[in-house]
Amino acid sequence: MTTRNVWRLAHRPVGDIADGDLVYGSEPLPDIAEGQFSLRLTYLSLDPTNRIWMSDQEQYMPPVDVGAAMRGGVCGRVVESRKPGVNPGDLFAGLGEWADVMVTDGTGLSRLPEIPGVPLAAAFGTLGLVGPTAYFGLLDIGQPQPGETLVVSAAAGGVGQIVGQIGKIKGCRVIGIAGGKAKCDYVTGELGFDACIDYKSQDVGAALDRLAPDGIDINFEQVGGDIMVAVLQRMKTFGRMPLCGLISSYNATTASEPPGYWTMMLMRRLTVRGFIVTDFAPRFAESGQALLGWMLDGRLKTRQDVRPGLDNAARLVRELYTGGNFGKLLVEVTPP
Amino acid sequence: MTTRNVWRLAHRPVGDIADGDLVYGSEPLPDIAEGQFSLRLTYLSLDPTNRIWMSDQEQYMPPVDVGAAMRGGVCGRVVESRKPGVNPGDLFAGLGEWADVMVTDGTGLSRLPEIPGVPLAAAFGTLGLVGPTAYFGLLDIGQPQPGETLVVSAAAGGVGQIVGQIGKIKGCRVIGIAGGKAKCDYVTGELGFDACIDYKSQDVGAALDRLAPDGIDINFEQVGGDIMVAVLQRMKTFGRMPLCGLISSYNATTASEPPGYWTMMLMRRLTVRGFIVTDFAPRFAESGQALLGWMLDGRLKTRQDVRPGLDNAARLVRELYTGGNFGKLLVEVTPP
Repeated sequence: MTTRNVWRLAHRPVGDIADGDLVYGSEPLPDIAEGQFSLRLTYLSLDPTNRIWMSDQEQYMPPVDVGAAMRGGVCGRVVESRKPGVNPGDLFAGLGEWADVMVTDGTGLSRLPEIPGVPLAAAFGTLGLVGPTAYFGLLDIGQPQPGETLVVSAAAGGVGQIVGQIGKIKGCRVIGIAGGKAKCDYVTGELGFDACIDYKSQDVGAALDRLAPDGIDINFEQVGGDIMVAVLQRMKTFGRMPLCGLISSYNATTASEPPGYWTMMLMRRLTVRGFIVTDFAPRFAESGQALLGWMLDGRLKTRQDVRPGLDNAARLVRELYTGGNFGKLLVEVTPP
Repeated sequence: MTTRNVWRLAHRPVGDIADGDLVYGSEPLPDIAEGQFSLRLTYLSLDPTNRIWMSDQEQYMPPVDVGAAMRGGVCGRVVESRKPGVNPGDLFAGLGEWADVMVTDGTGLSRLPEIPGVPLAAAFGTLGLVGPTAYFGLLDIGQPQPGETLVVSAAAGGVGQIVGQIGKIKGCRVIGIAGGKAKCDYVTGELGFDACIDYKSQDVGAALDRLAPDGIDINFEQVGGDIMVAVLQRMKTFGRMPLCGLISSYNATTASEPPGYWTMMLMRRLTVRGFIVTDFAPRFAESGQALLGWMLDGRLKTRQDVRPGLDNAARLVRELYTGGNFGKLLVEVTPP
């Protein structure tokens, strides 16, 4: 193995990601230095935050440099190792590159356990970054109490499907918001959400008035824009809003954002807290154990939307912003 | 004693409080029923939130009805009692009426201890509602850590002066924002704040850039508007904003508010939490003990701005919105 395929950021996108913003090509495989190993990717995770990393807006970690390999969530197996304790075949997951093979010293990666009976796509697509995102955002910030009403936007997406099920485990009434009947049927029929609003065919505010006439205790926010406003306006006193993402604005070319609801936040004593899953990295063992336990006892189901071919990644990532994915979007780089 | 003087809300103000919105007059003293007592007010506390109660906007307790006695923070002594355990001369404080005498069953009131060496104005003006507001807002929501930078707006006001001193006790670097040199000199010279920005003569943003070049960890927000925006834009990652008040907007006739900083809240993982002191009522014993301890050991000084004459209350309350008060604004209803 002397070459690899990799996506590099050629231009920072303006608005929607365009053809040519990311370029795919074959390159010589870097040498594996002492303390490094090579990893053949099984899955590449495509996530809304990818678009943030492509930009140079204010963000929570350095943007990807123009010319650099695109950053992404990855899992894969070691091919060749010059790092003590790391052996061919070992399974790792974490932050890596949009590539079929990457050479790394292990920074940003950790071992992913092999779980009997759980396919690798489900393990990576749940226990990777989306599960901890849902777990800490909902439990630490949302502080769900039995009988409370929880609203989850992007309900059929990677994080949303887990948030809603943890909400049910904690005794909440869970209302999802998703695009289209199939996604809504899935989160209510398969995942046990109490209700789901199809934002493509329904007025979200009117539906919330009907489904949650007494208001909303927790808004797990992933979307921003008009949907966020509709939920926010219906928050109860002492409501909490874990602010996980604002996907509706990631491709925006203007700085337009929903207005400030400062007076309402004061009068209703709301809590709004932004977070990024890596803020909770020291507690990933806790979330992993809980999530895995719920998976194994059947209380946490997750759906992966697995698409083949690393060469499709730049096209596939755009589907996140139009709701084209159904479940956690993964690219199968190498058959597991 | 068969009559009392009382301020009633005649009209809901539009914009600034106008002459005639509150009317002052003499009325027959209500009968004291079984379980009630009469209280002669010593001090009436004037607070920014009074303007909220005069309006019918969304708020955190019912507005004052048109025609009803104006609500206010009060302290006073029992004159006549038909309530077991309550005796003439007993000292109470809490929520009451803008009146020289009120008849009450004690709802919303609690006993105010007599503290040797501490004048009643200081005890009421510190341990009443402003001290607990500062204490819980800063400690529970702000979570100050040694070495962090705390910004306090309305720094020379009732709450602000206490927030800054608790911040110093907790090891923070404290920057006040106040209107005019006298107030700034007071909070730095007398109260030990590290710096104070005079918003009437200085560009707040530029001053913050100079005084806090690495950014702000905690913004204890009382003002809103442009000053809030200047502070918010300079918050550090993981910054906290106890949202205590938005006085700059209370007289506004339009719904204009500072814009939403949703993306910034997400990227910097800010926490914004609105609160009202009464949310913490079950813990008032804790705050009272801590505040009194700091007062007695000289670490907490407070300034009261005491003005004589209940008949001046409707004029005096307006000074809060133009920065006319210097310290906690109290009306002396009866000499202590």
